[in-house]
Amino acid sequence: MALPLRTNLKHFIRFIQRFKPLKRCFCAAVCPEIKEPPLNARVFSGIQPTGVPHLGNYLGALENWVALQDQYPSVLYSIVDLHSITQPQDPDKLRNNILDMAASLLACGINPEKAILFQQSQVSEHAEFCWILGCLTSMPRLRHLPQWKMKSKQKNEGSVGLYIYPVLQAADILLYKSTHVPVGEDQVQHLELAQDLARIFNLHYGELFPEARALLSSTRKVKSLRDPSSKMSKSDSQAMATISITDSPDDIAQKIRRAVTDFTSEVTFDPQARPGVSNLVTIHAAVARLSVEEAVSAAKGLDTGAYKGLVSEAVIQRLAPLREEIQRRRADPAHLEALLALGSRRARQLAAPVLDEVRHRVGFS
Amino acid sequence: MALPLRTNLKHFIRFIQRFKPLKRCFCAAVCPEIKEPPLNARVFSGIQPTGVPHLGNYLGALENWVALQDQYPSVLYSIVDLHSITQPQDPDKLRNNILDMAASLLACGINPEKAILFQQSQVSEHAEFCWILGCLTSMPRLRHLPQWKMKSKQKNEGSVGLYIYPVLQAADILLYKSTHVPVGEDQVQHLELAQDLARIFNLHYGELFPEARALLSSTRKVKSLRDPSSKMSKSDSQAMATISITDSPDDIAQKIRRAVTDFTSEVTFDPQARPGVSNLVTIHAAVARLSVEEAVSAAKGLDTGAYKGLVSEAVIQRLAPLREEIQRRRADPAHLEALLALGSRRARQLAAPVLDEVRHRVGFS
Repeated sequence: MALPLRTNLKHFIRFIQRFKPLKRCFCAAVCPEIKEPPLNARVFSGIQPTGVPHLGNYLGALENWVALQDQYPSVLYSIVDLHSITQPQDPDKLRNNILDMAASLLACGINPEKAILFQQSQVSEHAEFCWILGCLTSMPRLRHLPQWKMKSKQKNEGSVGLYIYPVLQAADILLYKSTHVPVGEDQVQHLELAQDLARIFNLHYGELFPEARALLSSTRKVKSLRDPSSKMSKSDSQAMATISITDSPDDIAQKIRRAVTDFTSEVTFDPQARPGVSNLVTIHAAVARLSVEEAVSAAKGLDTGAYKGLVSEAVIQRLAPLREEIQRRRADPAHLEALLALGSRRARQLAAPVLDEVRHRVGFS
Repeated sequence: MALPLRTNLKHFIRFIQRFKPLKRCFCAAVCPEIKEPPLNARVFSGIQPTGVPHLGNYLGALENWVALQDQYPSVLYSIVDLHSITQPQDPDKLRNNILDMAASLLACGINPEKAILFQQSQVSEHAEFCWILGCLTSMPRLRHLPQWKMKSKQKNEGSVGLYIYPVLQAADILLYKSTHVPVGEDQVQHLELAQDLARIFNLHYGELFPEARALLSSTRKVKSLRDPSSKMSKSDSQAMATISITDSPDDIAQKIRRAVTDFTSEVTFDPQARPGVSNLVTIHAAVARLSVEEAVSAAKGLDTGAYKGLVSEAVIQRLAPLREEIQRRRADPAHLEALLALGSRRARQLAAPVLDEVRHRVGFS
């Protein structure tokens, strides 16, 4: 790699932004360059326990997670509950959300035999390492990072936890000497902090951490059904905007029937000029495992109203087994808890020797 | 307690500031009100591993620590190495400093049968709880606290660790449900944060933490021998300003001989008008276990030069057994490490159930 990763990444993003049609070809899980990951490659990613994921999470990130566990020799996925409390949480809801998320990840295809699935707060090394990395991070370095800029404004003034959120992310990644991190474009700056902290640590205390590389996880962006200019989001105030992967067939059909489109009845794919219909095409292609062109072909002769019926059907068919599997797993919370505890023990087995080495290098032992 | 503690404390400090002569009567370890601590009282205090303490540490804080272990049913003293890395540290030096501090505390009279003496970084619960409390702390709350204001200026711009230093202090205190914390006046604002966080936690998650009360540890302030307007400090650039408790008799004699006094040869105690001589009287009284009046009496007929000889003798006599004991303990680092490990295990036994309860209340389990 001739250029530092951040430069490469920026070039890469600019490149895919300039050549919009190309963007649609990046449905594959990972950048082409890492199709054959090295033997010591390790993937780390985290997801906040927001409960059952929505369709955007599933198609945009989780499908990719499932693919990565077959491609990489070592994979860790963490339900990052320590991160979640940087925003106020109701404890009972959080407890439920953790189990909902675990059940959903398993139902989506995360296989605990292939990937270590664990709960962040059960591995004390994350918070410990976060403290140490915080002592290597200057205060202004965090001021312009996206999480803080976005969320502290929403809440008027955020908490210390929200401010240092990216330091904990860096700890999550480095603790496992991760080499690859699937990220959305909005997380690239946070990954850059992790890379910087790896460099700073290595410089101060001797080479220990690789600089993890970004896997731009997917360019499949599922948009809100009510406002196709913004991402589909769990926190959307309009219930009709978001499809949960456990929504009933009736709910799914209703939400898609009411999805915002436009006054042209023909189905075409043009995200700039026709974001609403194009969003339906994206969803259709993804759930039916078609290319965008195939999805548009399938819509030939249908007006948008009729096409919505076709998309509904495809979504319902794709989500039905997930919904059933989530229900089945949620009926046995003790088993879910045991699975998470086992995953957390396995994660700890990897994290503990790394933190021991960090502690020694810092001078604690 | 009719008023909130912070109000009481401020009144108390203002009171002792108004009545300067009274200040000298507060040599006793603790505020008069807590002479008979309740059965569930627990003292917590921490000291940074700066190596062997100086005479100011010993007379100002550590003697008090030794007294408290006989007065309180439960006492914890922590060598706070996590705090120490908020300033750059050389790892080898830090490792040595931790053992030097442990040896010194034991030599000064900390008895591991009475007080739990432990190394902060060996108890992972401190950093974990710090993260949780950070999520309850607003960013501006820390901006005006003394540690940050003082040290971030010195270094131009401090680290994240330095900024959130008081949150870790709050975690240290609350983790053991401590009821009493010996503090210097400069730490009162940090204790107030711990009290605030106890209240905020209790409000959010139900009553769990007492609001720890300050034990204004001692009004004995040993000043620099070269500049009696400032405190004796390890980081003083002038080697002659500070007496380490392991200084040789010759070094002690030389430092005291060169101590800044004034042009009046008589020995009197008047810290405002004659800070240099008064500092020697303070030291003399403390090491020889005399009242200030008795020390001044003992100096009758001596000029300051001759009095310096008397003070030297008293200091040398008082520190000789400490120096010997520190050397003896430092000769067996494995034993010191084992003692710290045992203390850390005992601390963890107290911290773990509290953090478990915290984790449950927050919604992690």
